[in-house]
Amino acid sequence: MQTVDLLIEPRWLIPVEPAGATLRDHAVAVDRGLILDVLPAGEARLRYAPRQRLELADHVLLPGLVNLHTHAAMTLLRGYADDMTLMDWLKTRVWPAEIRHASPQFVYDGTLLACAEMLRGGVTCFNDMYFYPEQAAAAALAAGMRSVPGIIVIEFPTGYASDAEDYLAKGLAARDALRDEPLVSFCLAPHAPYTVSDRSFERIGTLSEQLDLPIHVHLHETAHEIEQSLAEHGVRPIARFARLGLLGPNLIAVHAVHVDDGEIAQLAQTGCFVAHCPTSNMKLASGVAPVAAMAARGVRVGLGTDGAASNNRLDLFQEMRHAALLAKVASGDATVLDVHQVLRMATLHGAMALGLERRIGSILPGKEADLCAVDLSGIETQPCYDPASQLIYAAGRESVSHVWVRGALRVEAGKVLQISNNSLTGAINLWRNKIES
Amino acid sequence: MQTVDLLIEPRWLIPVEPAGATLRDHAVAVDRGLILDVLPAGEARLRYAPRQRLELADHVLLPGLVNLHTHAAMTLLRGYADDMTLMDWLKTRVWPAEIRHASPQFVYDGTLLACAEMLRGGVTCFNDMYFYPEQAAAAALAAGMRSVPGIIVIEFPTGYASDAEDYLAKGLAARDALRDEPLVSFCLAPHAPYTVSDRSFERIGTLSEQLDLPIHVHLHETAHEIEQSLAEHGVRPIARFARLGLLGPNLIAVHAVHVDDGEIAQLAQTGCFVAHCPTSNMKLASGVAPVAAMAARGVRVGLGTDGAASNNRLDLFQEMRHAALLAKVASGDATVLDVHQVLRMATLHGAMALGLERRIGSILPGKEADLCAVDLSGIETQPCYDPASQLIYAAGRESVSHVWVRGALRVEAGKVLQISNNSLTGAINLWRNKIES
Repeated sequence: MQTVDLLIEPRWLIPVEPAGATLRDHAVAVDRGLILDVLPAGEARLRYAPRQRLELADHVLLPGLVNLHTHAAMTLLRGYADDMTLMDWLKTRVWPAEIRHASPQFVYDGTLLACAEMLRGGVTCFNDMYFYPEQAAAAALAAGMRSVPGIIVIEFPTGYASDAEDYLAKGLAARDALRDEPLVSFCLAPHAPYTVSDRSFERIGTLSEQLDLPIHVHLHETAHEIEQSLAEHGVRPIARFARLGLLGPNLIAVHAVHVDDGEIAQLAQTGCFVAHCPTSNMKLASGVAPVAAMAARGVRVGLGTDGAASNNRLDLFQEMRHAALLAKVASGDATVLDVHQVLRMATLHGAMALGLERRIGSILPGKEADLCAVDLSGIETQPCYDPASQLIYAAGRESVSHVWVRGALRVEAGKVLQISNNSLTGAINLWRNKIES
Repeated sequence: MQTVDLLIEPRWLIPVEPAGATLRDHAVAVDRGLILDVLPAGEARLRYAPRQRLELADHVLLPGLVNLHTHAAMTLLRGYADDMTLMDWLKTRVWPAEIRHASPQFVYDGTLLACAEMLRGGVTCFNDMYFYPEQAAAAALAAGMRSVPGIIVIEFPTGYASDAEDYLAKGLAARDALRDEPLVSFCLAPHAPYTVSDRSFERIGTLSEQLDLPIHVHLHETAHEIEQSLAEHGVRPIARFARLGLLGPNLIAVHAVHVDDGEIAQLAQTGCFVAHCPTSNMKLASGVAPVAAMAARGVRVGLGTDGAASNNRLDLFQEMRHAALLAKVASGDATVLDVHQVLRMATLHGAMALGLERRIGSILPGKEADLCAVDLSGIETQPCYDPASQLIYAAGRESVSHVWVRGALRVEAGKVLQISNNSLTGAINLWRNKIES
């Protein structure tokens, strides 16, 4: 008998790899933060002597969800402005509020709230784009959550940095300082084609190659963005990126709503990733990303919530459901994006895009134990013919019962263990009063 | 001081009438099942001596939600088949299961499960279409929920009835038997243009006028339905309905996905209601109903979940969110269907369509006390700048804390008071085993 830290025995196990599998009566052995073994529960009891054994009689165990695009700190602006056009929303509400309030403390408090919400909803890792990425990382570490803060770059000055070079220098310094944190890795995060110059994009491309860092960028979100690029650069943003040598497996194209067949082929051939944010695209009326066509051509699509100011939930269960529903109605084909494909998008594809697929994204021996258990005993998920269907179409984040990050329990019975609700609520109330005043 | 049964003091009150209002620190006085008064909380304490006083410090109180279209019993087939085309889904999965299993007990048990789910999610009234409507009514009464069972009519025989005349006779007999139940009223429910003959529709039109009953019918759900009507009747279904004299304020057109400008004008001019089911329309790839255009032309649109077999949640919070999001992305205008409009669709418009607007649908003195309280203290709904925005975009049915039907408390702390979870779960497991075998 081998001693291990933890043996989880869920009723169902969806490991994501192999694709489409739903295992019954299997166990997952976890030791020192790693998944040691996945095997039938009966065998596991003969082979392992766990310090803790957890029987989850009505639950399905899946990999922790990966939120491939958010602006976590903006959770403090949740519901601050709705039902407005994108430019009106940005210019009259979001940007003025950010200019007044975005500070290191704003980013820490907002990200901590975001982490509490995401963890409770089964998200174990998020890819972030915001000012003061070191504060986002610090909040995620305080919550015990995995994060990928973005080394943000825009051409105009803010309270955080003065110019593109300064943004890069500050972001790279944050990365250096957090080099030894196993739960933190970084992306380069140039904001968008319309806020970053060719010169900065070239520098970012070089850094991406030298440091092997993903590039996380808004791309082809709105029709307006494309018109502007045609006017200023003579080409659409993806063509400009091709010219700049940015298309490749290091690129995470966020949104990719307005892409034609040629561009889909180009994304597929170059191995780019797409971060699909269906709720944000609907709420801001940006359009519908042709995800079924992208998936059919082999583009690897992950899922993101975008910021809470344009969603307004940091809820990957919602994004999974919306990805499936929207792809069906947009393509006119109810068979596209089935439940296992959508679950793969929310886990393994996100991990691959972030260069973390050897560590997370599926339940395989050797990977780190980022896990999420969902209780399907509630009346809303009864009867249960297929747990994968229940996860996507019937359950919600409120059914998440347990969450582990690198083997450490972070959520139990709906409670985020590392965050004090009282002090969090106090900070949120302070910010709400400031922002409203 | 006037003695009353109940005084509710929520932090916020959204009465739906007047439109767009959010009241702070108001109270609702309830007596003998009726809303007696809506007034500032300070005045209420001087005027009323309640048998029970309920302070809801972090909550918003709204009218109970009205589910304008469902097949409640089909909750027993939740997740039984997904990611299939409509016809494949019906012919290979749903219809065979129904032929084998749809019985009075199936309808009672399935509807009881649906009622538990709906009540927990703030739904106090549902408009149903299924076999054995007397069983649906009995289950709703057992749950303490308001129901509008449909007098279903189709031309082919089932275990329930032999022909159109038989369906009508049985449904009308059920209506007579339940005449004195204050929580039950009926609709005529011819299934669809492709399953009901002109002759039966004419008979139904006459009965609707004589008995002042709404007509609840699937209409213009798919492109195929319209092609079939053109082939068989030479006109589209709405034109056929116009010819049959069925268009008018008694008609509830379910889905109305494929309607052109002329048809929208026709629905508006004749005062028809539409039951919009955005999730079902997406999941089955039926298309997107032009709800923004319908609303702009004055068509009164309510919201429905459709059955759990094609949704798979009986969740009006989800339908409100989907209605808003889908209207924005489909119209390309983020300002259409704002939060108050969507809330009106899910309450007052549903009540109007069912001919119940003098009794339910808004929080006005004299109406019956069908109410729902939503707790916004959770981290997922923080910070709160606007409770109406939180309801539609951030909260979910899991935030519902209290539900009253006609003044009687039916849900408290997430528990459905009149339904035993154990006996319900036992019945569901029996059905799942039968249906899977």
